[in-house]
Amino acid sequence: MTAQYSTADMEALFESVKNWGRWGKEDERGALNFITSEKTAAAAQLVTSGESVSCSLEFPTQPAPDNPRSAQHMMVVAGDACTHGAGIEAAMDFIGVAFHGMAVSHLDALCHVFVNEEMYNGFPASAVLSTGATKNTVMAAKDGISSRGVLLDIPRLRGVDWLEIDQCISADELQAAEAAQGVTVDEGDILLIATGRDERRRIKGPWSPADGLAGLDASCVAWLHDRKVALLGSDGVSDAIPSGNAEGWPMPIHRCGIVAMGLHLLDNLRLETLAQACARHNRWEFFFVVAPLRVKRGTGSPVNPIAFL
Amino acid sequence: MTAQYSTADMEALFESVKNWGRWGKEDERGALNFITSEKTAAAAQLVTSGESVSCSLEFPTQPAPDNPRSAQHMMVVAGDACTHGAGIEAAMDFIGVAFHGMAVSHLDALCHVFVNEEMYNGFPASAVLSTGATKNTVMAAKDGISSRGVLLDIPRLRGVDWLEIDQCISADELQAAEAAQGVTVDEGDILLIATGRDERRRIKGPWSPADGLAGLDASCVAWLHDRKVALLGSDGVSDAIPSGNAEGWPMPIHRCGIVAMGLHLLDNLRLETLAQACARHNRWEFFFVVAPLRVKRGTGSPVNPIAFL
Amino acid sequence: MTAQYSTADMEALFESVKNWGRWGKEDERGALNFITSEKTAAAAQLVTSGESVSCSLEFPTQPAPDNPRSAQHMMVVAGDACTHGAGIEAAMDFIGVAFHGMAVSHLDALCHVFVNEEMYNGFPASAVLSTGATKNTVMAAKDGISSRGVLLDIPRLRGVDWLEIDQCISADELQAAEAAQGVTVDEGDILLIATGRDERRRIKGPWSPADGLAGLDASCVAWLHDRKVALLGSDGVSDAIPSGNAEGWPMPIHRCGIVAMGLHLLDNLRLETLAQACARHNRWEFFFVVAPLRVKRGTGSPVNPIAFL
Amino acid sequence: MTAQYSTADMEALFESVKNWGRWGKEDERGALNFITSEKTAAAAQLVTSGESVSCSLEFPTQPAPDNPRSAQHMMVVAGDACTHGAGIEAAMDFIGVAFHGMAVSHLDALCHVFVNEEMYNGFPASAVLSTGATKNTVMAAKDGISSRGVLLDIPRLRGVDWLEIDQCISADELQAAEAAQGVTVDEGDILLIATGRDERRRIKGPWSPADGLAGLDASCVAWLHDRKVALLGSDGVSDAIPSGNAEGWPMPIHRCGIVAMGLHLLDNLRLETLAQACARHNRWEFFFVVAPLRVKRGTGSPVNPIAFL
Repeated sequence: MTAQYSTADMEALFESVKNWGRWGKEDERGALNFITSEKTAAAAQLVTSGESVSCSLEFPTQPAPDNPRSAQHMMVVAGDACTHGAGIEAAMDFIGVAFHGMAVSHLDALCHVFVNEEMYNGFPASAVLSTGATKNTVMAAKDGISSRGVLLDIPRLRGVDWLEIDQCISADELQAAEAAQGVTVDEGDILLIATGRDERRRIKGPWSPADGLAGLDASCVAWLHDRKVALLGSDGVSDAIPSGNAEGWPMPIHRCGIVAMGLHLLDNLRLETLAQACARHNRWEFFFVVAPLRVKRGTGSPVNPIAFL
Repeated sequence: MTAQYSTADMEALFESVKNWGRWGKEDERGALNFITSEKTAAAAQLVTSGESVSCSLEFPTQPAPDNPRSAQHMMVVAGDACTHGAGIEAAMDFIGVAFHGMAVSHLDALCHVFVNEEMYNGFPASAVLSTGATKNTVMAAKDGISSRGVLLDIPRLRGVDWLEIDQCISADELQAAEAAQGVTVDEGDILLIATGRDERRRIKGPWSPADGLAGLDASCVAWLHDRKVALLGSDGVSDAIPSGNAEGWPMPIHRCGIVAMGLHLLDNLRLETLAQACARHNRWEFFFVVAPLRVKRGTGSPVNPIAFL
Repeated sequence: MTAQYSTADMEALFESVKNWGRWGKEDERGALNFITSEKTAAAAQLVTSGESVSCSLEFPTQPAPDNPRSAQHMMVVAGDACTHGAGIEAAMDFIGVAFHGMAVSHLDALCHVFVNEEMYNGFPASAVLSTGATKNTVMAAKDGISSRGVLLDIPRLRGVDWLEIDQCISADELQAAEAAQGVTVDEGDILLIATGRDERRRIKGPWSPADGLAGLDASCVAWLHDRKVALLGSDGVSDAIPSGNAEGWPMPIHRCGIVAMGLHLLDNLRLETLAQACARHNRWEFFFVVAPLRVKRGTGSPVNPIAFL
Repeated sequence: MTAQYSTADMEALFESVKNWGRWGKEDERGALNFITSEKTAAAAQLVTSGESVSCSLEFPTQPAPDNPRSAQHMMVVAGDACTHGAGIEAAMDFIGVAFHGMAVSHLDALCHVFVNEEMYNGFPASAVLSTGATKNTVMAAKDGISSRGVLLDIPRLRGVDWLEIDQCISADELQAAEAAQGVTVDEGDILLIATGRDERRRIKGPWSPADGLAGLDASCVAWLHDRKVALLGSDGVSDAIPSGNAEGWPMPIHRCGIVAMGLHLLDNLRLETLAQACARHNRWEFFFVVAPLRVKRGTGSPVNPIAFL
């Protein structure tokens, strides 16, 4: 099902979708620039029912095949401190997470990926120091990312519960989903791609994404570029794994998207509830808000994106 | 400036604002129940300019007098891994935080505070185990908290840059701020109280909140209850420190608010930018979205709340 | 191969080896009291070759079936900070570990295990608060544990490379190993039991100890008590898993040893190199030093115990 | 009191004490090579009383002026889990530490410091990656460091309780201390320098070492080299702060010691108890054991070094 590309094809594709310099030499926001205030204001008008839906997985504290380095959640002080005479009438806890894991709903900043030792807009990989990133950090999204969200539900299109772990989604299929759902992806939109990962995990149990994960193939790169998508998210990691492309060119969505286009990604979303809500409301557009933590030198953030219908 | 109360006064006040059982014996959402879908939908219509403003401080990785246990931000892999031949073309990091600190913008869940070994709705403190909370967790807010936000800017009312660290705000002053700003706090609103803490910190440098922090006094408790506020936030911790109340009755807003009323709190917000934006737009209401991480047994979450004008 | 006991048997065994009160009502050192200064001085005389052997596994930063919650090792600052102009001429790192895992060489303090809500010497389990232990902490070993060490090499006795994961070691076999090796366990000794776990892991790959782990059966409890062993260690966790005892009585070595006898344990040692060195020197006794971190309210510590031959 | 050096002096000093290549081009052990098995065996014979003394501070979990990034100690599960019906009859905890802080007793590996982007034996700073060190790691000391220890007690020599924070120790004074104490530092010894920091901290309270810390001046570099010291430790960080040397040449002991000589350092020891024990025994030599955690790519380790008299 996956399109095959030569290394030269991929390099040409990468060059063809480059947004470097498009918003100035010092720009660190990339495709977020497609979201104007007017776009956000118009998107907020989509909130008609007032129903809000979380698109985040639970904070993944339990080890699992897709969570080999589980997040930390530890109490600093629990209820025993007041029931056993320690005089503290509060409970507090600690959370810690290497959030670029495969079980954490998170935002990838533009410093997350390099191609040939370069980041989006030509900043060198060496600007991401062991003490933190100095370019293309998550602070580009410090005031949140808020726009019209569109969900394309591929299992629904295919009439299945979920995509199998070796299946890819092509640009043609994205267009087919648009047509089937009666929705069109526009400039500045936040595009979410459901592959049914939540359902598959619930029914068949967790698996290591190294064994395969449904996602977009390289044919989608130009389409995303043409549509001027501002932010791309998926219940997987947008890329299919393995990506089935030329050797040395894994992860075309991450590499062409983040590095060439300046496209932030949302990985490992939970889209099952949103897909159900959209079907119930018979609408596939909504107001979508992502509010990353303001980590000054960060490469992204765990997030709990909210869709408002 | 602080009203003085006897212990008996405080106990009576606590009883008088109790919402235990109001939304059922098993309720863990408390005053969030004041936010209906209709309320959220109406609030979203307040987004007219599309301007979005973060109300979060930066993730506090640097030790300071108000940040003695600074948050962790460490790289898992930086740019050197691709520039020195390690073959990894991505950067990743780790964040960790005991988020109930005084320099972290965070949401307090209803399991955060106890009075007489009890939590909101009468659940025992012992339900907050060393392995995590089992009642009144942050999951009550898992789909986000979104409603009409109202900012009351007390330094603006007083004509000062900031409140001094030993100053309290009374219920009368909240009403005066409403009148001066031409805004009224309604059922289900998210109320934000600016004390000018950001400005004071920037000009005078950080200080330990143990030395004093401006906030609401106990007279505000009944007012918050009457107005049916759904969520209360401040650039401080809502409570004045010290609270100036009866001995053994510190933190009346935390104790009466969280425990008796079931009122979630947002602590240590950054409200300077929002206050400026509100003044510029000459409006003090906005759509407000808080999206905590979904920590299943958590006592709260670091957050980056977004106000939309 | 495992002896079977009734619940009543186990309860009687527990009572029969209780050292509560033996060294005073406030004692928190338990069997460490068997090590006198004279014992330590005599043991140091065993250092004849000057060869030192670490008995610790590597700090387990990689997830594995026996390491589902791998330890953290992250750089705070690496070499790039000086090679890319950040002006820092030092490298620093962070380590973090929930050290009671099955892949961490660690010392169990006497507050690690409870039986019927009690710890060694009758202190209540509630003395181990969410803010840390207040009784029977690792500080009992703050000046290190140093005595004569004796290794009993069970695979050597049996003529195998390793014990299978469902095999138990009885008291009779410990005595047989003594006889075969020409060594006798005396009062105040540190006893190490090799089961060949390192070799098995190296050859067959890691496995989850929940699937089975070789170790001592309940018949060893009285023997350890009679011999006045001061500290017990193993390449496993001393207990066989499953322990094959009466229902509700798992982990007899942990429960009778730590709780009744006040016997500290060393879990998940690496004994392969030590066994080879002992065979080469044809001696099974040595000076043995364990130096836990001084964690004031700690339940143990990761350690790198050193054997001197 | 501090000797003044020009930059050229320091560069010449650095060159003059270089041990690069002395133990082969691939050597990563440096001055640890001075410790032979015979040396260790002879040192063990110094254990006559059997008294053991910890030279480690408590694991520093409390913020303080000398501990701005305090270590983490959090319970994973406490006693409440068995007293409140959760069925877990064990307590477990987590420790985490960026151990190169000024309140942590720790070992500096040879990859900890760079001069002109180089480490000991000429390895490049770039070999210390954001994913961990690949040369000169703490694994050089994986089997522990064990040798004759010698304590030089400078406050005792001067007849004071402690050295003030702006005072330096010269090579002449080290020799004077040897004479006064009747002890001589030999090849392969572990040298400990007491400055009275513990006493000063206890009496006057903690202070930031950035404000000053007693230690050795640059005149000691050649002396340490001549004496073939294998490991150097102090209750401070061996270097005086500020070091009072040529501009751009801070920390001569760290830079000449670690980088040129390949001398591991022990920082922030607690030497008060050892000094008292030595005085009581009227001997200043002892068997000394340091057992770092085996962190494969680590720059050092927190340690609890034990002196045996």
